[in-house]
Amino acid sequence: MSNIDHTVNIDLQERSYPILIGSGLLADASLFSDKLPYRHILVVSNETVAPLYLDTLKTALGNRLVEQVVLPDGEQHKTMEVMNRIFDTLMNGRFGRDCCVLALGGGVVGDMAGFAAASYQRGVAFVQVPTTLLAQVDSSVGGKTGVNHALGKNMIGAFHQPTAVVIDSDALQTLPDRELSAGLAEIIKYGFIRDADFLQWLEENMSSLLARSKPELTHAIKRSCEIKAEIVAADEYEHGVRAYLNFGHTFGHAIETSQGYGNWLHGEAVAAGMSMALTMSARLGWLDNTEVARGLAIIRSANLPVEPPPEMTTDTFLELMSRDKKVREGRIRLVLLKAIGDAIVSTDYDDNHLSATIKQCLPDHTA
Amino acid sequence: MSNIDHTVNIDLQERSYPILIGSGLLADASLFSDKLPYRHILVVSNETVAPLYLDTLKTALGNRLVEQVVLPDGEQHKTMEVMNRIFDTLMNGRFGRDCCVLALGGGVVGDMAGFAAASYQRGVAFVQVPTTLLAQVDSSVGGKTGVNHALGKNMIGAFHQPTAVVIDSDALQTLPDRELSAGLAEIIKYGFIRDADFLQWLEENMSSLLARSKPELTHAIKRSCEIKAEIVAADEYEHGVRAYLNFGHTFGHAIETSQGYGNWLHGEAVAAGMSMALTMSARLGWLDNTEVARGLAIIRSANLPVEPPPEMTTDTFLELMSRDKKVREGRIRLVLLKAIGDAIVSTDYDDNHLSATIKQCLPDHTA
Repeated sequence: MSNIDHTVNIDLQERSYPILIGSGLLADASLFSDKLPYRHILVVSNETVAPLYLDTLKTALGNRLVEQVVLPDGEQHKTMEVMNRIFDTLMNGRFGRDCCVLALGGGVVGDMAGFAAASYQRGVAFVQVPTTLLAQVDSSVGGKTGVNHALGKNMIGAFHQPTAVVIDSDALQTLPDRELSAGLAEIIKYGFIRDADFLQWLEENMSSLLARSKPELTHAIKRSCEIKAEIVAADEYEHGVRAYLNFGHTFGHAIETSQGYGNWLHGEAVAAGMSMALTMSARLGWLDNTEVARGLAIIRSANLPVEPPPEMTTDTFLELMSRDKKVREGRIRLVLLKAIGDAIVSTDYDDNHLSATIKQCLPDHTA
Repeated sequence: MSNIDHTVNIDLQERSYPILIGSGLLADASLFSDKLPYRHILVVSNETVAPLYLDTLKTALGNRLVEQVVLPDGEQHKTMEVMNRIFDTLMNGRFGRDCCVLALGGGVVGDMAGFAAASYQRGVAFVQVPTTLLAQVDSSVGGKTGVNHALGKNMIGAFHQPTAVVIDSDALQTLPDRELSAGLAEIIKYGFIRDADFLQWLEENMSSLLARSKPELTHAIKRSCEIKAEIVAADEYEHGVRAYLNFGHTFGHAIETSQGYGNWLHGEAVAAGMSMALTMSARLGWLDNTEVARGLAIIRSANLPVEPPPEMTTDTFLELMSRDKKVREGRIRLVLLKAIGDAIVSTDYDDNHLSATIKQCLPDHTA
């Protein structure tokens, strides 16, 4: 007797797995007993999430050997040094290759726990139990794991698929407003890159989403996971269409790096980055001004920024973007829109257009 | 016009690659131009090997963007902290996902460079140019990469296959005697686990091998790579027969960990570990005393130890072995011999036999 409302499957042959979405799943002992056949589990969480949900989860996990490691909260802690605490706990607890690492928290916890699971004894099982909206709709799905380097975000990591993703929509009720909005940024992204109808639905339901109405949140999570599942199944290792998921991220990563990790939330940086990508798409003649205005309006309606921080300059942007993982043969690869709902990857643009776009988007561009 | 004497192919579908064996390959510009289509290469080496071979290799690499990072030499430096220097160099040099990391050195360099290549931007190309006998016959082939944890060897890493392995047999002429013997330990291992005829050939040619006679060394390298290639192709991720390659290693890792990394060479610890595994196999009734004596004699003939260090105790062994990656459901999985040339993996043994074997093998067992 489980409370699963929706199951979205990620089809990756022998690495396939389900995303289970529902209310109260964190306390659902029958679900964990069905889906997690592991005797020895390390729960990785953080100082914010553990006091709220760790005891509930441990009760639901029942009679197994469960240990825990509680990390500091925040993107600035997504480092190799902090990740080493996971390895220390695994080693001290004598976890074998047949163990499971379970991430209970947001994207930072999931990324570090996942990279630790990928690397411990060259790979052990991994389960995601995301508690933030951003992790539920994006980072917990698709197997990207990793840590930041001082010079660039997510530069060190692995592709390591989880064996299950368990999304308890109730966890969103305790999420700070700012993090709810950050998650909405990635949800809006799916509309921009793949589904104009969904974007329209988001426009119509944004106030319900911000009010944390459960039916609308559940629909938004499910639709986001479906789009991500389809893209990841088509291109697990990002040789092609998976790059679309980085819409707004190349600009966004530059903002995050320049501001110091954790000062801008990832979703906030992506929001401003998407605004810049929309502007660039218009400059290349693919979107008209009405479409850009519509895009910025929906981002603003989720209480998200549409401009980068005022102290950034065009040169800072170009410098930081040139370090991005998406650079090939020295060209920055940009994810842009040919139309609302239709993304492309381009390196074939005039550099002047990129500089002019950045200049146009900076808050002080009229100064 | 290349000087390749032998090519051994590792058949792993889209991850297949050649092992190229020959004299003077480090200086072979046509080989590198044919086999390494990378524009931006980071050579990872160490303080011992770089002065000997780095300039030669860089000349052979020709007109590309080649940078280098030179690490301290020795197993005690195979740590996450030292590996971070590779990431720093990659980030500072703005290496993109289309770069290549090239390991020039022994097993430690190869393991760290390989794990860095597996993790940088979630995976970039990797080429092995092993310069020690141990790396040429074992660690450079098969895609196991990683670093040590203070509590256990190779506990953090990845499976990441190289795109080519380039073995210059001439490099062995500068190898210290002790490291030559350490490499012979892994060569002898292949005879024990898979090829009784090869073991006999090794008995007959050990003095030529120790005298570094090129034809015999080349044959031993080729035959070792063939056996490893066959086993890795059958079981890339070590769910089955690949475990045979760990013959002597569970005992050996306990020795290495107890002594502090780098005091016993890996091959020396494996040699003593193989002696213990032979003894255990005899205790279980699979080998007779003549076969054990023959096994110990060939190990000794390569100037390798057949006993663990005198300060180790049975309890230390059992404690350290219980942390090994090969532990499942709390049982230590031992690679043993049913006969010379025929390995098996066993968890189904009487614990008293294991304790008695360790006691018997310790230098002070008569005390």
